[in-house]
Amino acid sequence: MFFWKLWSIANAKLFAGKVNNITVDKCTKFGIVFKDVVAAFEVVNCNGVEVQCQGTAPTISIDNTAGCQLYLNKESLGASITSAKSSEMNVLVPSDETDGDWVEHPLPQQYIHFFQDGQFTTSPVSHSGA
Amino acid sequence: MFFWKLWSIANAKLFAGKVNNITVDKCTKFGIVFKDVVAAFEVVNCNGVEVQCQGTAPTISIDNTAGCQLYLNKESLGASITSAKSSEMNVLVPSDETDGDWVEHPLPQQYIHFFQDGQFTTSPVSHSGA
Repeated sequence: MFFWKLWSIANAKLFAGKVNNITVDKCTKFGIVFKDVVAAFEVVNCNGVEVQCQGTAPTISIDNTAGCQLYLNKESLGASITSAKSSEMNVLVPSDETDGDWVEHPLPQQYIHFFQDGQFTTSPVSHSGA
Repeated sequence: MFFWKLWSIANAKLFAGKVNNITVDKCTKFGIVFKDVVAAFEVVNCNGVEVQCQGTAPTISIDNTAGCQLYLNKESLGASITSAKSSEMNVLVPSDETDGDWVEHPLPQQYIHFFQDGQFTTSPVSHSGA
């Protein structure tokens, strides 16, 4: 499934069932809810997208995107999420304690590189007060 | 010093002496050589810039930039380099062994996030074959 240049349908979210692959490209204020993705879910060149995974997704990638709210469930918590050239990413995971509540985890968007022992070591810059 | 929307003067590199702050904004194929920066050197919204620091620079930041070649010297190796929303960044440092040669270190541009023990841990994705 491929979504391209869609704009502002966040309020009427698209729903996809079990599919092999989903790519959301050049979409603005876009929302999508899907059940299972067999291969990969990708967000590229987007602005303000909301994504909810209700089943499983092994790989989620966010590339060149400003603003991505990603809702995972307990089955998709093990997903490997890759990000590149992106900002304002939040992952919302269901809370263990209060059933049904979401806990928001911002993904780092800035990184610091230091030269040590002949190579660069990179660590994320955290702005969270937690 | 502030450079804005300059294009293709990479062959005739600009030279700056000791200054407080340098910002290179919205420049394409731009080259700059500077001696010392007291506060910070910044590259923002650029495309293919080459930067050489011949003295010291405590902080170097690269933001929303595709393509940055950064030449450091032995004095500026301790600089803290921050990057955000950027790709194709290389830092060239003088070699310890062969005098005058540059050793190229690519900075990571892609990151992988895993959920572990109630929070996300982030690590850079390395594509280098070294």
